[in-house]
Amino acid sequence: MEDPAPRHGGSVFAGLVGASQVLGLVSVVLTGVWMGHFRGGFAWDGSAQEFNLHPLCMVLGLVFLQGDAILVYRVFRNEARKSVKLLHGTIHLLALIISIVGIVAVFDFHRKAQIPDVYSLHSWCGIATLVLFCLQWVMGLLFFLFPVASAWLRATYLPVHVFCGLMLLVMAIGTSLLGITENLLFRIMPTYSQFAPEGVLANTLGILLVLFGVLLCHLITREEYRSPPNPEEESLSVHFKTLTEGGSPASP
Amino acid sequence: MEDPAPRHGGSVFAGLVGASQVLGLVSVVLTGVWMGHFRGGFAWDGSAQEFNLHPLCMVLGLVFLQGDAILVYRVFRNEARKSVKLLHGTIHLLALIISIVGIVAVFDFHRKAQIPDVYSLHSWCGIATLVLFCLQWVMGLLFFLFPVASAWLRATYLPVHVFCGLMLLVMAIGTSLLGITENLLFRIMPTYSQFAPEGVLANTLGILLVLFGVLLCHLITREEYRSPPNPEEESLSVHFKTLTEGGSPASP
Repeated sequence: MEDPAPRHGGSVFAGLVGASQVLGLVSVVLTGVWMGHFRGGFAWDGSAQEFNLHPLCMVLGLVFLQGDAILVYRVFRNEARKSVKLLHGTIHLLALIISIVGIVAVFDFHRKAQIPDVYSLHSWCGIATLVLFCLQWVMGLLFFLFPVASAWLRATYLPVHVFCGLMLLVMAIGTSLLGITENLLFRIMPTYSQFAPEGVLANTLGILLVLFGVLLCHLITREEYRSPPNPEEESLSVHFKTLTEGGSPASP
Repeated sequence: MEDPAPRHGGSVFAGLVGASQVLGLVSVVLTGVWMGHFRGGFAWDGSAQEFNLHPLCMVLGLVFLQGDAILVYRVFRNEARKSVKLLHGTIHLLALIISIVGIVAVFDFHRKAQIPDVYSLHSWCGIATLVLFCLQWVMGLLFFLFPVASAWLRATYLPVHVFCGLMLLVMAIGTSLLGITENLLFRIMPTYSQFAPEGVLANTLGILLVLFGVLLCHLITREEYRSPPNPEEESLSVHFKTLTEGGSPASP
């Protein structure tokens, strides 16, 4: 890796990437503190402690890891494009597995406590986000890692993939905020309006997640942080060219 | 106006703009039906009926009108850029006034009912969104409608203005979803999990707002829907050039 900084404002870029990582990690830690300290910790027995794994898994998987999986295209701009693609897909897969554990935890808790499933706006948005996230991952795999699609189809699908990825990150953050609100009103409604420490901590977590999302959107959409055309990609693309119809393949 | 369609896919663009308007208007109507039919209608007397103006004003002002104010740059691409700027600023001003009425309604209701203010994540996000929205409007006025800033400064601020505008729309939608969840849990917690009609209606409203946001983001960020360089803008820019330092002024 020769120079991980973007064309202009390399130190600003590095600072913003660092800030995003701090925001993401602090969000994961705050979720752990909220569930660990205020809500009695973690278990896998269908109890409220099993439910507590749900927020932790979703913030870690569907927010932090999903965000970082997108960010690798900006951070590792001088690495071989194929390696970055593999890293992007692998972090997404890890995010997906952790998210599924989080979803199983909440369904398991509901089943044992005889609480109905999928009635709230949080659950509607969450199910939609996870289903679309799975679809996005499979489509990404087919279009960009396996040479199934033609170069033209890949180039056409690329902006859709990038747009949907960013929308899914925003939806994951929005759904997390709905979950925070739902959880606080279920558990501490009488003291929430008195600025109970648990409420202030959870609100702060919500604001940090919003800041993480805004920073990620900035880093991903700003033109000057975009990867320049990579000469290495041209040589790698030959491999795809022999397997698909003409033209150079597109990469996010 | 010669041709309001973008360079490519004019009918798709028109269809998507139409769909966004249907989604936005149905969202406003559903909010009205929710507050009017299920929550006892509207008043201005500090009662719960005054509170009911809050969701209606915020969905109408901070979501629908804010979205449409952004969209004018894509829809009226062949109109004089100065007229479009004025329309953009005017719709935003209308959105701001309606939003302030909505905010006053909820504070007035809280004061009369002795409910504490600004303790929930919904209120934290809402206050942040409204304050930043005001700032964005004033900055837009100074930079793009009055020739206070230099052409260089306008060109530098333009991508920040566009990015912040889109973020504010997303924040407004996210905050609305938090408000929907909060309101349902305050009012119908026992029946929400039984798929009470009010809950299903409000959840549907939330999903429509998400779709409105996704569609707006698509229409605004997609390269082929962007306005081409407008010859009329060049002649208009002379007016600014005489008042500010060299270079042509930037326009969103």
